[in-house]
Amino acid sequence: MERLSVHLEEKPIYSIILDQSFDHLAQETERLGTAGRKLCIVTDSNVAPLYLKEVTEKLQPVFQQIDSFVFPAGEEQKNLDTVRALYEALIQKGYDRGDMLAALGGGVTGDLCGFAAATYLRGISFIQIPTTLLAQVDSSIGGKTGVDFDSYKNMVGAFHMPKLVYTNVRTLLTLPEEQFISGMGEVVKHGLIKNEEYYHWLIQHSEEIMNRDLSVCEQMILESNRIKRDVVEKDPKEKGERALLNFGHTLGHAIEKKKEFSMYHGCCVAAGALAAAWISMERGGITAEELAEIRQVMEKFGLPLAIDGLKAQEVLEAAKHDKKMDSGVIKFILLKKIGQAYVDRSVTREEMLGALKYIGVQETEDGR
Amino acid sequence: MERLSVHLEEKPIYSIILDQSFDHLAQETERLGTAGRKLCIVTDSNVAPLYLKEVTEKLQPVFQQIDSFVFPAGEEQKNLDTVRALYEALIQKGYDRGDMLAALGGGVTGDLCGFAAATYLRGISFIQIPTTLLAQVDSSIGGKTGVDFDSYKNMVGAFHMPKLVYTNVRTLLTLPEEQFISGMGEVVKHGLIKNEEYYHWLIQHSEEIMNRDLSVCEQMILESNRIKRDVVEKDPKEKGERALLNFGHTLGHAIEKKKEFSMYHGCCVAAGALAAAWISMERGGITAEELAEIRQVMEKFGLPLAIDGLKAQEVLEAAKHDKKMDSGVIKFILLKKIGQAYVDRSVTREEMLGALKYIGVQETEDGR
Repeated sequence: MERLSVHLEEKPIYSIILDQSFDHLAQETERLGTAGRKLCIVTDSNVAPLYLKEVTEKLQPVFQQIDSFVFPAGEEQKNLDTVRALYEALIQKGYDRGDMLAALGGGVTGDLCGFAAATYLRGISFIQIPTTLLAQVDSSIGGKTGVDFDSYKNMVGAFHMPKLVYTNVRTLLTLPEEQFISGMGEVVKHGLIKNEEYYHWLIQHSEEIMNRDLSVCEQMILESNRIKRDVVEKDPKEKGERALLNFGHTLGHAIEKKKEFSMYHGCCVAAGALAAAWISMERGGITAEELAEIRQVMEKFGLPLAIDGLKAQEVLEAAKHDKKMDSGVIKFILLKKIGQAYVDRSVTREEMLGALKYIGVQETEDGR
Repeated sequence: MERLSVHLEEKPIYSIILDQSFDHLAQETERLGTAGRKLCIVTDSNVAPLYLKEVTEKLQPVFQQIDSFVFPAGEEQKNLDTVRALYEALIQKGYDRGDMLAALGGGVTGDLCGFAAATYLRGISFIQIPTTLLAQVDSSIGGKTGVDFDSYKNMVGAFHMPKLVYTNVRTLLTLPEEQFISGMGEVVKHGLIKNEEYYHWLIQHSEEIMNRDLSVCEQMILESNRIKRDVVEKDPKEKGERALLNFGHTLGHAIEKKKEFSMYHGCCVAAGALAAAWISMERGGITAEELAEIRQVMEKFGLPLAIDGLKAQEVLEAAKHDKKMDSGVIKFILLKKIGQAYVDRSVTREEMLGALKYIGVQETEDGR
C-alpha cells in the first residue's frame, strides 16, 4: 500500500492511497470520522455491477447506513438533471451536513458526485474511489468538480477537495482496453510536461504497463499522482501553473467535441498533445527526433496518431468557441523540452493548421 | 462613508462600505480590477425600476461592458431554474473567469447571484449591493449563498465570499414598511445575542430608526455588520459559533414555512426569538422583566408579538422536519443573558409548547 499526502496552504488535507485491493478502504475511511454517519455511494450503471457490492460490504462496518445512487453510464449524464436527482435522493434519505458521499467510478462519476457534495447543504464531505485509469491518475485528484451545461464541458462546478482518494489498482483488470489507453494519454502527458525521467521510465516499461502488470501500474499511478499533486498544491485554483496540466487539451477538447464525444478523452488529449509537440518542435523547444519519439510512445500505448473524418477548419472553430470563456485568447501549453512545459498565448492559425496536419487533420480547399 | 474590513484566516478578504449614495461605488469596485472586464448586474423586477439604471451608469466607466439579468421578484424564484437561466445569459454573452456579477437587491437576489457566481466556471467574482435592510444587516455578509430546492430553504448552495459589499443606506427610503420591519427582526437579534449595549442603544433610538433617519440607520447597520463580521470571521463555515446567528430561527423557520412564506423572514425570526427568549427566562437566563422588555422592543419596531392561524402541533412538526438535516436533533439558541447566547440541544417538547403559547400559538386538544 502506498500513501501520498495532499496539502493545501501547507496543511495536509487528504491522503491518496494506492492499493491492490479494497482491504484498507474501511480503515482509511473510518479515520475521517464515520461513526453514526450515512454514506451514499454514487456510481454508474457500468461500475455498479462490478464493484458496488464489494465496496458496500467493506464499508458497512464503519457507517451507520450505506445507500447507493446509480445513474446511467455516459458523459451525457454529467449534467444538472442528474445532480438534481442525486439531491432528491439525499433529501429523501435525510442526509445532513455530517454525512458523506463516495464517487465510485471514472471521471464522470467523480466530477458529478464531487459537485453534488460541493453544493448539497453548502458542502458535505466526499471521497473518491476511482476505477478507471484516467480517474486514478488524473481527475480524482485536485478537487475540480463540475457538470456540463448547454454543450459546454464543466461549465458549472466548484473546487471541492475530497477527504480521501482510494485507488484499488486491481480495478484496472476490468477496464475496457480503449479506456485503459485513454488513461495512458494523461500518463504520457504527465511525463512530457513535468518529468523526463518518468517519461523514459514509461517507455522502458511500456510492455508491462500494456499487460497491466499491477505492480508496475501501481508505480506508474503513484508517480503520476505525485506529479499532479505537486502541481495542484502549488496552484489549487488554477490561477497559474496548474494550466500546464492542460497540455494537449486546446486541440484535444476541440477534437473531442467535433467527434461528439465518440472518442475517449485521453485519446483526444494524446492527439492534441502530439499536435502541441509539433508546434513545440517548430519553435525549437524539442528536436525532430524527440517529436518522432513521442509519436512512437503514443503508438506503443495504443494512442491515436491521426484523427480521421474531421476538417481543420471545424476543429479550429471549436477550439475558438471553447476558449471564448477565457478572454477570447487561445492558450496553448507547449514544451520547452521533454519534461518541461510553459503557457503560450501567441500560437498562430498557421501553426495550428500545421499541427493539425501533423495528426492527419487537413484543411479543405474550399473551407467547407 | 464607513468601511469595515472582513478577514479570513487573518487576511483581509473584502470591504463592507456604508454610504448614503452610490457615489463611491465605481471607485470601490475599480479597486478589484475591473478594466477590460464585463459585469452582469443581477436584480429582481422590484429593484430594477428603482436602481438598475443609476447603478449601471455609475459603474459604466470602470467596466468594458455591463449587462443585466432581471428575474421576477419573490422567494419562489430562488431556485435552480433561475440559476440555469442566469448561466445561459452569461454563456451567451461570453462571460469568462475574469468577469464579475453584482447582486443588486435583497436576500433572494444575493443568495441566488452568489450561488451562480460560486459555480459558474467553478467560481467567478461577485459583489453585493444590498437594497433591503435585511440584506444590508445580515444576508449580504458572510458568503452564504444558495437556492431553495424541493421546498427546502437553502438546500443547495456554497460558501463564496463577495469581493465587496456596498450599502447605500438611502435605498432604505424606497423600502416598503413591512420589509423594513422584517430587517429590524435581525437587528434586534444581533443586540440580544451579542451586545447588550447595542440592544439598549436600539431602544433609545427606536423613533429615529423607525423614521428612517439615515445617519442613525447607518450607525445601526454599521454596528450590526460589525457583530455579524466578528462572528463569521471566527467561524466562516458555521462549524460552531456562527450558529448563534440562528437565534429565533428554529421556531421562526417553522412558522415561516407553515405561513407559506406569506410573512417576512425577519418577522418570523422575531417571533421565534421571542419564543426562544421565553424558554431562556424559564431556564433562568433572563428575568421576567427582561423578557417583557424584549416584547416591548419588538413592539416598538412593529414586529409581531403573536402569530395567528397556526396550531402548535403543526409548527413543531415543521421544526422537526426542517431539522432532519441536522442529525435529527432540534437545536435551539438561548440567551444566557441579554447580549449573550448559547447553543442548546435539550429543549423539550413541553418547553417548545410553552414558548409557542407565549407567542399566541396554541395546542389544539384533539391534536388536529
